[in-house]
Formats: sequence, C-alpha cells, structure tokens
Amino acid sequence: MTQAERWMLPDGIAEILPADAKRVETLRRNLLDLYHRWGYELIIPPMVEFTESLLIGMGRDVDMSTFRVTDQLSGRILGIRADITPQAARIDSHSFPRSGANRLCYAGQVLYTRPRAPMGPRAPIQVGAEIYGVESLQADIEIISLMIATLRTAGIRQIHLDLGHVAIFRSLAEAAGLDSEQRNELIALLQSKAVADISSWVESNVKDADAARWLRALPRLAGGSECLERARELFANGPEALRAALEELQQVADAVARRYPQVALFFDLSEMRGYDYETGLVFAAYSPGHGQALANGGRYNGIGAVFGRDRAATGFSSDLVTINALGDNGLREGDAILAPASDCEQLWQLAEQLRDAGEVVISSMPGGGDDSETLARCDRELVQEGGRWVVKPR
Amino acid sequence: MTQAERWMLPDGIAEILPADAKRVETLRRNLLDLYHRWGYELIIPPMVEFTESLLIGMGRDVDMSTFRVTDQLSGRILGIRADITPQAARIDSHSFPRSGANRLCYAGQVLYTRPRAPMGPRAPIQVGAEIYGVESLQADIEIISLMIATLRTAGIRQIHLDLGHVAIFRSLAEAAGLDSEQRNELIALLQSKAVADISSWVESNVKDADAARWLRALPRLAGGSECLERARELFANGPEALRAALEELQQVADAVARRYPQVALFFDLSEMRGYDYETGLVFAAYSPGHGQALANGGRYNGIGAVFGRDRAATGFSSDLVTINALGDNGLREGDAILAPASDCEQLWQLAEQLRDAGEVVISSMPGGGDDSETLARCDRELVQEGGRWVVKPR
Repeated sequence: MTQAERWMLPDGIAEILPADAKRVETLRRNLLDLYHRWGYELIIPPMVEFTESLLIGMGRDVDMSTFRVTDQLSGRILGIRADITPQAARIDSHSFPRSGANRLCYAGQVLYTRPRAPMGPRAPIQVGAEIYGVESLQADIEIISLMIATLRTAGIRQIHLDLGHVAIFRSLAEAAGLDSEQRNELIALLQSKAVADISSWVESNVKDADAARWLRALPRLAGGSECLERARELFANGPEALRAALEELQQVADAVARRYPQVALFFDLSEMRGYDYETGLVFAAYSPGHGQALANGGRYNGIGAVFGRDRAATGFSSDLVTINALGDNGLREGDAILAPASDCEQLWQLAEQLRDAGEVVISSMPGGGDDSETLARCDRELVQEGGRWVVKPR
Repeated sequence: MTQAERWMLPDGIAEILPADAKRVETLRRNLLDLYHRWGYELIIPPMVEFTESLLIGMGRDVDMSTFRVTDQLSGRILGIRADITPQAARIDSHSFPRSGANRLCYAGQVLYTRPRAPMGPRAPIQVGAEIYGVESLQADIEIISLMIATLRTAGIRQIHLDLGHVAIFRSLAEAAGLDSEQRNELIALLQSKAVADISSWVESNVKDADAARWLRALPRLAGGSECLERARELFANGPEALRAALEELQQVADAVARRYPQVALFFDLSEMRGYDYETGLVFAAYSPGHGQALANGGRYNGIGAVFGRDRAATGFSSDLVTINALGDNGLREGDAILAPASDCEQLWQLAEQLRDAGEVVISSMPGGGDDSETLARCDRELVQEGGRWVVKPR
C-alpha cells in the first residue's frame, strides 16, 4: 500500500467530519432526550461480546453480518455487534431485570461484514427503543409512536408507515399443513412478490382448497386501509389467529391515524421481514425517494429465553447517520469569538466566563500558519479598550 | 456454554446500565460542549479501518492492542481501533485538512485485545482533543488546560499534573552516543526506576564523563518545582535541546499555576511514556487514590507524515467511563409523571406537551405485570378532574 492510499477507508465505512458530526451529535442528543421523556432508560452495551450472547437466533442476516475475533483472555470467540437488540434482550433478562415493563433505549455504532443493501453503510450508528414485559398492543403503539417521533425529530416530514403481522402467514402455513422446508420455499417466493410462481407453487403443494385460495390471495393484500377490509372478507372463515392479527393491525392503524394524521399508512400482509424471530406486528417507516426503510421494528416475544427469561418484547431501531442525512433538523453553525494570544490573566478570566455562558472562544496561536479557516468562524473578537477586555465585531 | 452462562460478558468488557449510563451520557455531552466552546470541532471516525491507517508507529502497545479481522469486501486486514488519535491524524492530513490550526475532538468506544493495566477495561470510551498545525507552546498549554477542565467537568476535584519532556532523554542519549539497542536497554531500566542498576549500566556503557553524570542523575529528577531548579543547575552545560526542554516545562508550569492554582504540579524528567512517537512535552493527570493516569497526552509532531502531511500536533485523551466513576458530576435522577392507559385524545396531547417541556411522562401499560419499579420513578400522575386532565402528586 502506498503512502498516498493510506488514508483510504474501507467500502461502506464512513467517517463523519465536523459539519455533519455536529448535526449527528445534536440529533443523537435530541433522540435520547425524546426517549428519556417517554420513560425509556439509556443503556450503553459494549461493542463486543461472546458470539453466544450476540447470535441468539435473530436470523441469518445478523449471523452473517457479525465479525468474529478470538478473545486472547479466554480463547473464546467474540463477535463485534451487528445489532444492539440482542444486548438489550440480555440486559432485560439478566443485568437489569424489572418485574414489570422495562423500557430501554440506546445509540451506538454497529458493524456489518457486508452492507445490507448495495452501497449501503457497514458501520451505521444504531438508535432504538425497546419495551420488555408488556404483552398488550399498547406497547406496540408506543414503540411505533416513538419510531415516528424519531423521524420527525430528524426533520423528516413525509413518513410512510408499513404495517404487517407475521401471524398472518404463520397461521395460513399451518392451515395449509406446510412443513418447514415448504414454508421456506413459499417465503422466498413471497419475498420476490412473484404472483404467478406463487399460484403454481400453491397449486402443487397445498391440498386444502380454502388454504390454497388464502395463500394465493396473500401477495395481493398490500396497500392502503381498504386492504384490511378485503382481508377481513377473504379470511372471514380463516384461522382465528389470523383474524386476531387483522384486528391488531386495525387497532394500531386507528391509533396511529389519531396521533399522527399526516403519516401515510400502508399494509403488507405478506411481509416476511424478521419472520425468523418476530412474533407479531412488524412495522417499517419509509420516506419518498429513499428505497430502504429508515426505521423498522416489531414484536419479538421470547427473545430473552436464551438468557433464561422469556418475556414479551417489542421495539424499533434506525440508523442515525442515514436519517440525519435525509432530514433537516434546523441546526445552523453558530459564530465564534477570537481571543488574541496573550498571557493576560483578565483575558483568561473573561474567555472562561464567555465559554461558561455558551460562547465559542478560540485562542489565536502563534506559529499556526495561515489561520484563515479558523478566522472565518469568528464574527467577533476580544480586544483591549481602556485597560479592559471587551467583545467587538470583527 | 450453558444457558445460564450465556449472559456473561468477557473480562474487561463492561456494559453501562441505566443509572450510570445517564451520568456517562451527561458527562459526554458536557465534555463535547466544553471542547466546542474552545473551538474544537467534533469528528466521528468509524470503529474499524484498514490496519495500515490505524497502526502508524504509535508504539507496540497500540499494535498489540488492536484486534484484526479480514475485510470480506477487499480481502485486506481491518483493525478495530484501540486509539482514536491515528484517526484524527488521518483526518487532519486528508479528509479535513486546514492550512492553519485544526482543533479536533471526539468521544467513542475503543477496544483492546488485553487490558492496559491488571483488571483494567478493554472497551473504554475514549474522549479527547487534539490540535494540529501549531508549533508553539500555546497549543500544549491549551491542551493541558482542556485536560484539566475535562477532569473538573467530571467532578474530580483533586488533580495532580505530571509533566515530562522526551527531548530530555533523547538529547542525553545523543550526548552519550548511545545506539538504538543501548537506548532501549536504558529506557527499560529508567521505566523500572532501578537507580542502582541504572548507575552500573551507565558505568559500563557511557564513556563521556558529563553524559554519564547526567544520565545517572536522571531517575532522581522527579518531584515538585524544585526539581526544575536542580535540573537547570545540573544541566547548565548540557545539550541545548535539553535546556530548551527545561524552559518549555517551566513556561507550561507557570501558565498552569496561573490558570489552575489548585492543581498540584509534578515533574518527572525521566518519563518515557510514548517515547516511540512523542516528540516534546508529555503530560498526565492523576487523582489521589487512583494509581493509573486519568488522562494523558503530549506532543507528537509528524504523526500525520505517513498520510502525506507532516504537521505539528499535540493532544490528550481520557476514558469517559473511568472519570465518570471517580467524579461526582452532581446529576440526580429526576422524577416522572405517570399517564394512565387510555385512548383519550386530550391525554395524548397533554402528555406530548409535558414531554416537549422536558418532563418524563410514562404510560401505564395493561399486561405489564408488576410495574412497581416504574411506579417508583413517578412522583406525579395525570388524572381526570372535571372533564380535563391535570397533573397531581401521587
């Protein structure tokens, strides 16, 4: 590697330079403050743990995304976290257990071996909030509200909320008597939205006429609120778990519409994201012009079981860097005061007072070369007038 | 690994739970705000880079501390950062170059393969500030001031500042005509403060009588300000670079004494920390009762040369988690308002208003089990009175 290349960063690994960093930091604070005001308590989990703690059945994606290194102290394998949710689940199960609702939030860098989408980031800053120990739909509604509030705090005005429910496919697969391999085949087809292929697959694999009809209709059950109406008719005699899922979707949609009338609501009853570990509602937020979800989440009851505590759980997460880049949080760079190079005691005292009052005071440095970039940040300066230091415009 | 062990964290890898996390987050903000008010601009470098960018001759410690993984995209070796300074140097050299002074600051997790001290942390949160492009001592004085202000912001009242200067040993080694192997032998002896061994080593290795006398005296030149006096006498005819170093130490000591009269000053003229890459003043801050330095730094001119830009540089860093644990930043947990589970539109509006005003409002959740821990956080609640919602003490 030549010296000229030594500054290069790996693909998908970004650094955040001052102008952006100030905005990212401001958004980070605003989001953690938002979660705090809803009663969510901050946790700061470490960026590595034993792989046994990080890879807890949250799907192949997380497993494949996780870098492994050998721990020189224990000889065991450590993973660099690719997701903070397993850490939150571990903390709810063991380090910070509460008997009732446990509201946790976090913000921290995670790392992926490969980007999740072409050209996507490999070191996003994951922010999120999770609630453990509450079975009721109120928890999902609170989490979805916080997810919407997160994007609004980032200055993202147009929000599309996609709602799905994994119990819909699960109960249909059960009604159709699909074994695990068949389920995986059908899930792959549903994810590619290949309607014709799905029909022919169902024809040759599903005997029960009702179940076949239901499964064939599934990929078309996506769209606005009319889609829930159609589903209710279609599944009028369907599995009870499916009808309960539709009722949950309706309740959540009603609550969100009341709280955030400007958010556009969409349903996708064949949504398969997180099918491996999600157990109920799944949700994702989009913004027009950006193909990837800006935030997503769902219900993943039982996630803590591997740590010995099987609890209800629902949560969401987002990438701080992405939503910062898309939104406008209104932050404008402030101006600074230039202080001359001087040993004067009074100058030091005044500079400290101004800093305590929130002003930026930058000391001139002899030997600093061409300081024009620093000077450009300063709209005022400290000058001596009649034996005392005063702030004057530059 | 049994399920019961699955929650265990690796040695030296800590998680930060809510009560501490709130304090750590508050300190993090206060420190970044402090640096901002001094004109330091935040950078957020990634937690991995190519090892060529991270391991740039900052000594064997950093090299040995860095976990390596293979980048699946490029096939090259990535390092998990064990220090943020190489990243700041790279940014000053390439991504964010300024012609004059470049003031940068950061706060982020780093990772060590092994703890730096017995039972020490392996995943500290490194905070620090650095100034590039300024040769003058004013930059060192500003950095030391910020280092002291960092510990004071953390609530650490009793601060000992240790000052050293690598040019002292370097110029003596030159005067004594030591080759590189001899230097390393003597450095090892000086680090162990083995006065008798040093004397006999000097006797058999150094011919020049002055140089031998100076080197034998070196380990005893540690202590309060009288130590600088003694050194000035002893080295009256010593190498010019050494006398210039003493003069720099005196100037820094005077400036710190003026600005922070409550800080105790110590000198150690045989200080060898960072001898591999430090080029001038070195400094460390201690607090009584804690053996390890709480913050340290120094001048490392030329650190950016490997990236193609050879600039003056001085900076310091500290571990946010350690200084948070030792200090008392005065943060006390506030109280929250409990909101009943209800779909009421007015309740939602009022809860949002209270949150906008900075209050913590926690919604009751049906199905949340025993919520006594959440209830204990709430000293007030929202109740309906005469058709409207009001906040009442609980």
